[in-house]
Amino acid sequence: MPDTGHAPPAKAPSARTRVKRLPARGHYDGATINAILDAGLICHVGYVIDGQPYVTPTAYWREGDRVYWHGSSASRMLRQIKGGIPVCLTVSLLDGIVLARSGFHHSLNYRAVMALGTAETVEGDRAKLAVLEAFSERLAPGRWRELRPPTAQEVKATTVLHMSLNEASAKIRTGGPIDDEPDYALPIWAGVLPIRLATGVPEADPRLTPGIPVPDYLQNVSVG
Amino acid sequence: MPDTGHAPPAKAPSARTRVKRLPARGHYDGATINAILDAGLICHVGYVIDGQPYVTPTAYWREGDRVYWHGSSASRMLRQIKGGIPVCLTVSLLDGIVLARSGFHHSLNYRAVMALGTAETVEGDRAKLAVLEAFSERLAPGRWRELRPPTAQEVKATTVLHMSLNEASAKIRTGGPIDDEPDYALPIWAGVLPIRLATGVPEADPRLTPGIPVPDYLQNVSVG
Repeated sequence: MPDTGHAPPAKAPSARTRVKRLPARGHYDGATINAILDAGLICHVGYVIDGQPYVTPTAYWREGDRVYWHGSSASRMLRQIKGGIPVCLTVSLLDGIVLARSGFHHSLNYRAVMALGTAETVEGDRAKLAVLEAFSERLAPGRWRELRPPTAQEVKATTVLHMSLNEASAKIRTGGPIDDEPDYALPIWAGVLPIRLATGVPEADPRLTPGIPVPDYLQNVSVG
Repeated sequence: MPDTGHAPPAKAPSARTRVKRLPARGHYDGATINAILDAGLICHVGYVIDGQPYVTPTAYWREGDRVYWHGSSASRMLRQIKGGIPVCLTVSLLDGIVLARSGFHHSLNYRAVMALGTAETVEGDRAKLAVLEAFSERLAPGRWRELRPPTAQEVKATTVLHMSLNEASAKIRTGGPIDDEPDYALPIWAGVLPIRLATGVPEADPRLTPGIPVPDYLQNVSVG
């Protein structure tokens, strides 16, 4: 789908999204934020009930300047959040362990986005179907048209939420260790152990009708 | 280190940690919770400032019936949380995309733990050093003794928090798609696309002293 994007802010959209520790790792432009969101599959949604924070992992997808997630209409998380309470949606992609010559300078390479806001529900069966199709196409492009179409009851049983990316920031660390200058001479191996989410060989359902090949689109699923 | 463990509760430790949606996915025994926590490397910590939830990804480790995380003493997250405010620490490990014959029955395979509580700081340089060594050994067993030892200033600049696992629950989905019975006859590929965090080939620091081999322990790093 076209990327309608959002205007890249020159600086943090709010004081509370500004990266204060290690500010060089902070990014606030839409292109950087969108690239991280489009690479990931799972976000962690934070919300508060009776003063207690909860953090729920869930699948998400992005369209334009909004991020979407969905679930059962019976879900506690979705029922609370659709009431308009403050939400924090965080996506983090781990890229490596940074092994320095001292314990203190060990670190992780990562790409992360934090978005603050309140969520709204997608209303109307046609609108819901359209965004669910977009989610399916993001996950496995071409699969939606192969599937048994959703029933009215299934659409009704699914809640879809969306939230603006107006108040979002990215934080990124890349590269090797930054050691104290005298430590570079030490006889200690230093570098990066890369980490990535990888897909494996598709495992067919034991009840699969014989003769159906693994779809090509499963080779192109982006998971992080 | 020995696993002092915590007694496996026969049921959820609290109403707010009981898995309500799809209760068959809920687990409350220490062995299941610890296995997930010991496999993962990154948690997402939720906390509340002025009514706004924040979700911060960070490395963590487990010892006995407590989970630990650390960071700069200047970190906003750590400064807030060490004040004793309510925290939710969530670990989620993505294991696969479950491809069903209808969009509605698509799902994810995962292992997740959610722990609620309040955090305390590890006080005292010796105690801090001991738990930082435990973290290093969990990450890369054998590396700690190779490193340039921490200085007093580095220990001072590091805050270590820990939280009880007394109020924790696990949620797990495994296996293939569960389709509506009539849909099994459809000519649609169904099954699981496995996903896992994988380590790559270690990348040496460009400033590495020549002749230092890649340590063997990097082949045994568990990331999820």
